[in-house]
Amino acid sequence: MSKEISLQALQRLPLYLQYLKALPADKDIYISAKVLSSALGLGEIQVRKDLAAVSDGGKPKVGYCAAELIKDIENFLGYDNVNDAVLVGTGKLGKALLSYDGFKAYGLNIVAAFDSDPGKCGIDESGKQIFHISKMENLCERMKIEIGIITVPAASAQEVCDILVKSGIRAVWNFAPAHISVPAGVLLKNENMAASLAVLSKHLSEKRVCENNSNSI
Amino acid sequence: MSKEISLQALQRLPLYLQYLKALPADKDIYISAKVLSSALGLGEIQVRKDLAAVSDGGKPKVGYCAAELIKDIENFLGYDNVNDAVLVGTGKLGKALLSYDGFKAYGLNIVAAFDSDPGKCGIDESGKQIFHISKMENLCERMKIEIGIITVPAASAQEVCDILVKSGIRAVWNFAPAHISVPAGVLLKNENMAASLAVLSKHLSEKRVCENNSNSI
Repeated sequence: MSKEISLQALQRLPLYLQYLKALPADKDIYISAKVLSSALGLGEIQVRKDLAAVSDGGKPKVGYCAAELIKDIENFLGYDNVNDAVLVGTGKLGKALLSYDGFKAYGLNIVAAFDSDPGKCGIDESGKQIFHISKMENLCERMKIEIGIITVPAASAQEVCDILVKSGIRAVWNFAPAHISVPAGVLLKNENMAASLAVLSKHLSEKRVCENNSNSI
Repeated sequence: MSKEISLQALQRLPLYLQYLKALPADKDIYISAKVLSSALGLGEIQVRKDLAAVSDGGKPKVGYCAAELIKDIENFLGYDNVNDAVLVGTGKLGKALLSYDGFKAYGLNIVAAFDSDPGKCGIDESGKQIFHISKMENLCERMKIEIGIITVPAASAQEVCDILVKSGIRAVWNFAPAHISVPAGVLLKNENMAASLAVLSKHLSEKRVCENNSNSI
């Protein structure tokens, strides 16, 4: 199925997946958009639309077979085909992501890491190889790596991103608190903790923020 | 100044701060919205509006005094008054955040952590104290903690959040890949890596996604 879906809907799909996977693994469990929406505190029409975009299995009255819906969502998200990734910058956050084994469930496989500090190169405690950044371009090209995870300081983020793009990376997951730019066709997903902290800090400093009538962001 | 500002604008402020702080610390440096917008790849009108909302220092032709603008933005964000936070769940990500010293610059001070595993309690390598979760409510109330950082598994996220709210927390920073709900007045900021991975994976699986004509998210 190649229906279009909004970015917002796309980002809700993991929530559905997670809820469905928590249900007892029983072939005969059916779940309706109504039940799912109230369980997750989302609008029923929104959930109904999201599910219809990723699965044809909805039946009037009963809803979706949970097991089938899980398959459909994972298939839609491309979790079935694992994507190889490299991580650049093995500081505290980098090491944490490197040794986090939960990514595989989302189709992400970090095959290696890079650092500019020769002293950090070698085998990480997670068992993954950390190479010197000078080896990155060659290795990414050779292994046809598609995802680059950036956990370097803000100042070097764009430089690292440029090398990744030059190496054929098609998606960049940026954890550096920096505004970086990528050419069209390459997806950039920012995980900007500084922006999040600004939201928290602002809320506590009790100045009013427009939050589309919602206190959840 | 207590002007209203959109959530989107609020989350751009740290980018401005970061750029301004990278400039040579010279009292006489002035920067215009035009220069800032092109440097950060943002729309000039947008930047002009953002800056006007947080600072009155803009002068025709010359723009803003960088040093003054930094002060105004930090003041607007409430970075000047440090907020105490606790962290719940000392797994890999939890430990990484606990030992990350960059938060202080954003007015966030993690004073202690909690875990349900008694074996994990004691002094963390970061030098911070990890208490058993049974002590959380009492300690948060006593120390008037305002921010709770959740890094527990999805299954226990809501339960932990409820205890935090009960303890007087006013802002929750959730890293667990779970949909949790908070009462009105409490701010919830989700750092949902599962949602980010869905976006990356989807892009690579080459199904089309509406991204508001932008490839940066």
